[in-house]
Amino acid sequence: MKKGLFITFEGPEGSGKTTHIALLATYLRSKGGRVLVTREPGGTNLAAGIRKLLLDGGEGLSPMAELFLYEADRAQHVHETLLPALRKGTLVLCDRYTDSTLAYQGFGRGLNRKAINTLNAIAAGGLKPHHTILLDVPVKRGLRQAKRKKNHHDRLERAGLAFHQRVRDGFLRLAKTENRRFRVIPQQATIEATQILIRHAMDSFLKT
Amino acid sequence: MKKGLFITFEGPEGSGKTTHIALLATYLRSKGGRVLVTREPGGTNLAAGIRKLLLDGGEGLSPMAELFLYEADRAQHVHETLLPALRKGTLVLCDRYTDSTLAYQGFGRGLNRKAINTLNAIAAGGLKPHHTILLDVPVKRGLRQAKRKKNHHDRLERAGLAFHQRVRDGFLRLAKTENRRFRVIPQQATIEATQILIRHAMDSFLKT
Repeated sequence: MKKGLFITFEGPEGSGKTTHIALLATYLRSKGGRVLVTREPGGTNLAAGIRKLLLDGGEGLSPMAELFLYEADRAQHVHETLLPALRKGTLVLCDRYTDSTLAYQGFGRGLNRKAINTLNAIAAGGLKPHHTILLDVPVKRGLRQAKRKKNHHDRLERAGLAFHQRVRDGFLRLAKTENRRFRVIPQQATIEATQILIRHAMDSFLKT
Repeated sequence: MKKGLFITFEGPEGSGKTTHIALLATYLRSKGGRVLVTREPGGTNLAAGIRKLLLDGGEGLSPMAELFLYEADRAQHVHETLLPALRKGTLVLCDRYTDSTLAYQGFGRGLNRKAINTLNAIAAGGLKPHHTILLDVPVKRGLRQAKRKKNHHDRLERAGLAFHQRVRDGFLRLAKTENRRFRVIPQQATIEATQILIRHAMDSFLKT
């Protein structure tokens, strides 16, 4: 199996990233792969504190401060988790990365995308995903699925339909712009059917 | 009295910024000025959480993540505190701002200063101080004074003499480069003597 691959999973709320990454990791490990599953924001000690600031921030948190908190989490995640794992040859499956920042803070909140690209590059220290799987789902269906899984709606889910539509459209536009890196997988009728498409994409990444 | 002035105070550990800002604010208020005293990191609800992350982060916190946390604090501070106060015509005295980030993260920790300038500009939304007072103090004397004021040494004070020397030299270099904005005030034998120099500088800012 190909070593030190960095695969990111992107998509709007309720696209099933977490479920599918877990299923995919099980599959890849059964084939003998050394796989790390991680996420942003998350995956470091710092992340718990940052997640708390993001969720508790409420309406008072400025979009720019929110952006910098996500980038702080990223900088620590790259330094502490991603680079060490990739250097050891681990295959890394990461739930959200720089594209989410562009989709949510850029397309969603309307912050300058050139500034976000600059911050993304600095925080990531230039680390780019080898491949990105975009799990696409229509906004209403996604939000319905996201609500079912959680006990309360967080700040993001309260942001409104128009916001989430901009986020989804943003993801699709990013995928079109970087169509060599992205593989768009529309959500199928069942988890199993979507997972088959994801494994198929993954198999092709491991071969190329 | 001149309105909406934004004055920042910079300097190494133990330079007496907090003490002198408080004395200066009392003086300015006695002359009828509407004065806001604020600080970075600090001055917002978000700041308490960020300060905690910075202080608790310990050795594991990457310099880049630290930088982004300071910038998150700055973005929120500008949005929530500085801009609203300046728009109302308040005179703002701010304990540390973008120059501290250059001195500590750039000159001190060795992060790329061009990247820091970029992040500073984005986080501050272009808000620059009208004047900056650099309270200068030799490193050993400053650290001795800083220790006396606190119950425990925080992470910054443990960073070592060479680090603090780079920070002080960095501040002095910044002051030389932007000598129209900066006024360097070397610490005098007594608080009163230093404060007289600061008031003198402040009076000249208010006239020009």
